[in-house]
Amino acid sequence: MPEGEAGQAAGSRVVHADESGGWEGIATQPYKAADGSWSGVTRQLLAGGPRSPSSFELRYFELQPGGRSSHERHQHEHAVVVLRGEGEVLLGERVHALRAGDLVRVAPGDAHQFRNTGGEPLGFLCIVDAERDRPQRVGDEGGPSCDLDVDRAGSDS
Amino acid sequence: MPEGEAGQAAGSRVVHADESGGWEGIATQPYKAADGSWSGVTRQLLAGGPRSPSSFELRYFELQPGGRSSHERHQHEHAVVVLRGEGEVLLGERVHALRAGDLVRVAPGDAHQFRNTGGEPLGFLCIVDAERDRPQRVGDEGGPSCDLDVDRAGSDS
Repeated sequence: MPEGEAGQAAGSRVVHADESGGWEGIATQPYKAADGSWSGVTRQLLAGGPRSPSSFELRYFELQPGGRSSHERHQHEHAVVVLRGEGEVLLGERVHALRAGDLVRVAPGDAHQFRNTGGEPLGFLCIVDAERDRPQRVGDEGGPSCDLDVDRAGSDS
Repeated sequence: MPEGEAGQAAGSRVVHADESGGWEGIATQPYKAADGSWSGVTRQLLAGGPRSPSSFELRYFELQPGGRSSHERHQHEHAVVVLRGEGEVLLGERVHALRAGDLVRVAPGDAHQFRNTGGEPLGFLCIVDAERDRPQRVGDEGGPSCDLDVDRAGSDS
């Protein structure tokens, strides 16, 4: 079990945000294998996971200035709430500006990429089904299936 | 279909937060039937619901100053992220102060109640399984089952 996940389903609890908005004791996980498809991304699993009875996972992603997630698509849905910073999301062919409080729904099958366009970290929550299909990078549709993921069910943005 | 839910699974989309942090076009729903067990609570379904393929629901609750959710327990898990305001959560026998950024996990079976202790609205996200058991009010365990809920799967806090 990755460091920091041990307590995530051990009982009711409150994890207070620290001065920078972070959560002490919740491990920062690798986003994906370093393959050049993304940059400057960290990921924290806030709820769900192997020891939880729930069928969802709540993740927090933070993109550093200039950072971007993989440009990818998958059949599972993303529900995203931006917590801090400024950026944009490519949804299909359209780019939408993002700032704190904005909601994003990524519908099944739609290609998407999150990008930090500001000078501060871009942080957002992303909720997904615990059981979900593996993301496929845009441009790789005709190629071999890619295995970018580091965890049980596939980590994606 | 309740007003404002029509577009929630129609495709990818961005809903920008307005000046007050709200989301235009996403209906505010009744929290529960008015039975005296709660006060000053509104609820918005941000993701999930009947037209979504996902197994979770993302809800936003806002408690007015002095407001409180029902004191209740259930077998499904709550994952909560506070977005604004000041308050507290009663988790079992303990009270924990809450402010923006704080995470709360309510484990299965644990009695809980959220309360606004500040002068501004207390707003938080709450993620649950779409399929979940009905909450039971604390103190009603030996009585008849209570039907406080207004929607398909039971609205809870």
